[in-house]
Amino acid sequence: MNPADLRIDVDRLVERLEALGEIGAVHGPNGERGCARLALTDADRDGRDLVVGWMHDLGLSVTVDAIGNVVGVRAGSDPTAAPVMIGSHIDTVRTGGRFDGNLGVLGGLEVIETLAQHGVSTEHPVAVAFFTDEEGARFQPDMLGSLVYVGGMALEDALGVRAADDEAQLGDELARIGYAGPMPCPAAGAPHAFVELHIEQGPVLEDEGVTIGVVTGVQGISWTELTITGQSAHAGTTPMRLRKDPAYVAAEITAGVRAIARQMGGTQVATVGRLELVPNLVNVVASRVTMTVDLRNTDEHLLQHAEHRFETMCTRLAADEGVTIERRTLARFEPVEFDERMIDLVDVTATRLGHTTLRMPSGAGHDAQMLARVCPTSMIFVPSVNGLSHNIAEFTELVDLQAGADVLLQVVLELAGPVGGGSP
Amino acid sequence: MNPADLRIDVDRLVERLEALGEIGAVHGPNGERGCARLALTDADRDGRDLVVGWMHDLGLSVTVDAIGNVVGVRAGSDPTAAPVMIGSHIDTVRTGGRFDGNLGVLGGLEVIETLAQHGVSTEHPVAVAFFTDEEGARFQPDMLGSLVYVGGMALEDALGVRAADDEAQLGDELARIGYAGPMPCPAAGAPHAFVELHIEQGPVLEDEGVTIGVVTGVQGISWTELTITGQSAHAGTTPMRLRKDPAYVAAEITAGVRAIARQMGGTQVATVGRLELVPNLVNVVASRVTMTVDLRNTDEHLLQHAEHRFETMCTRLAADEGVTIERRTLARFEPVEFDERMIDLVDVTATRLGHTTLRMPSGAGHDAQMLARVCPTSMIFVPSVNGLSHNIAEFTELVDLQAGADVLLQVVLELAGPVGGGSP
Repeated sequence: MNPADLRIDVDRLVERLEALGEIGAVHGPNGERGCARLALTDADRDGRDLVVGWMHDLGLSVTVDAIGNVVGVRAGSDPTAAPVMIGSHIDTVRTGGRFDGNLGVLGGLEVIETLAQHGVSTEHPVAVAFFTDEEGARFQPDMLGSLVYVGGMALEDALGVRAADDEAQLGDELARIGYAGPMPCPAAGAPHAFVELHIEQGPVLEDEGVTIGVVTGVQGISWTELTITGQSAHAGTTPMRLRKDPAYVAAEITAGVRAIARQMGGTQVATVGRLELVPNLVNVVASRVTMTVDLRNTDEHLLQHAEHRFETMCTRLAADEGVTIERRTLARFEPVEFDERMIDLVDVTATRLGHTTLRMPSGAGHDAQMLARVCPTSMIFVPSVNGLSHNIAEFTELVDLQAGADVLLQVVLELAGPVGGGSP
Repeated sequence: MNPADLRIDVDRLVERLEALGEIGAVHGPNGERGCARLALTDADRDGRDLVVGWMHDLGLSVTVDAIGNVVGVRAGSDPTAAPVMIGSHIDTVRTGGRFDGNLGVLGGLEVIETLAQHGVSTEHPVAVAFFTDEEGARFQPDMLGSLVYVGGMALEDALGVRAADDEAQLGDELARIGYAGPMPCPAAGAPHAFVELHIEQGPVLEDEGVTIGVVTGVQGISWTELTITGQSAHAGTTPMRLRKDPAYVAAEITAGVRAIARQMGGTQVATVGRLELVPNLVNVVASRVTMTVDLRNTDEHLLQHAEHRFETMCTRLAADEGVTIERRTLARFEPVEFDERMIDLVDVTATRLGHTTLRMPSGAGHDAQMLARVCPTSMIFVPSVNGLSHNIAEFTELVDLQAGADVLLQVVLELAGPVGGGSP
């Protein structure tokens, strides 16, 4: 068979997704089948053991590095060539789904099994990696494993991070579950290229009726925590003119960042997702509000423009109401742009396979954005039903899983260079 | 001494306020001296025992009714006359002060001690009452004891109310602390008149530089709980146009009720004091928001107008954003207007004593509004420093305590009819 005609076996892929999803399974009241496999827990260990077992079954050479990243390599014909790496993560959030991350890793195994089944060798080795603690649900920052892998965070700092839930130290937990490996991290050499297949985690592909998202990069992220301090007062006895109400200011900020995003258009988004009032009683004007503002844009200058408008608004509102506003930056990442040729390769490949495509930025962070620092990188998105993710109702249709994994296979083949087609 | 020249002993009043405040005392980091004496707790029992002891010391005839209201009566010269009643409450909120309620009760004892000290008798008996569970902090509704006293709630229903904290039944707790008394409740006869001295609990008197608030009535109260349901979504991957964000709608409602209050002016106030997001995460568009809206006005028609504008706004915002809004009424009280002659009496008396006065509604609920259902009623307000109440920093200056209790004394004398001046 001509390698260009190879297709993955979606039933086999789904079988692995289901098997991995049973570890830490969460069942919802309406038949939802989600997953809770927080990084470096017993469930994560069991999930890792299952995937490593599959890697061994496929004859891959498996290594574990000092931060627990696992790489399985299928040798290429050129012993000096760097591997084409497929990768993602298998940790989940507490109320996660079975596709987020897992699809990229198990899609990678499916690519290798398809190549093996059809006797197709490649010039470059093909590697499948899963990186530690991508979600950041237990240990922050998120994308920690891939960040250390590319040298963006010192290993000792990462090992010293403490869990948000039980204060456990990352290094201790890594050793406890048996995944403090011998390979150095950051890695000694960079991959030839990196490709990540992932669910969109948003509603755009479904809304546009498109199968394959050709990911052009990752939005820049600006997270700010605001602490607004006013004057607690009795809701009945305090005239409006004498109030210093932080809940009112928080409301104006929430509506204000929505207006900024609407007015700027493009990829600008703005979200107030966390907001807490103190003392939070029906008949008391709040004394303090803590809230977060999440601003994202694919363009660094536009993101800075949004930040500037947001800050100006805060200053004006604080003065008008007589409250104080403290700002604390929780996270700030500049936008990442993927390699143009890699983007084109995904687009051309998907189109050749007969799929509709849409070039789009990723609104969420992914391991691919870390790998993009050291090698040509791209991502392939498939639709999320109802745009849901980080949700036990997360789902992607079989036909879209097939499409995404087929594109991954053909992109990897193109990058790794097929050197032999097997018997039909 | 001419009874019109009698003045209370503010040091004695403060001594009692301090002694009662030590029961359930809460000390703040900056020297604040607050109080936590929740209704029908051990601390409430100890406070009641102390006040009942003082009543006995003053020779009052003390009765306890079936809901735990305590009344101490000093006999008048006319054995058929109904008593002039002074009253308030001695329970506090969890982080309360030492003046709220307590001042009205201990001010009453001070009035009686002053009359006794100067050998002044009255035609009508003078009673001092404290009513059970005015705050509603442990058992809802608030003003429960006075509500049952005037027949506004059936005794058996009140005894069956369960505590918000530990689910204890009110009747059991009443018996446990020894205050399930033998007197029938509702009371058999109405007082001749009712007067309540209370701290303002707001900033108006201080802001206006006035000593005595002549309370004209109590604002009507409309409490609504809203549950806004949208669509949880990823803050990075969901374009603004595809969002159904209940946090944004909550913000527009919060800013909107402020605008309604500002536009209506007068006594209209509007407060969003409680607001909770689910799941309340920085990078997740909320799926659900629960919030409360507190609307108050002294005029029932204007209050209904505010409610109507608020409801119209909710309907429009829900349609625009594609969220659903469920409304639940938590409380609805029509405004109470005090007796015109009683209001005038307070004003004239305070002015005669040389105090500045301001006619004002009460923004908070008080036992007096229940008593107003059965007899001519009025209230006397004294300033709250910084408008603070339900706060351990609650404070009223000595000079204002003196002024308020003097006005109380002279109003009671006028109502009860002095029949003898003692020796000078």
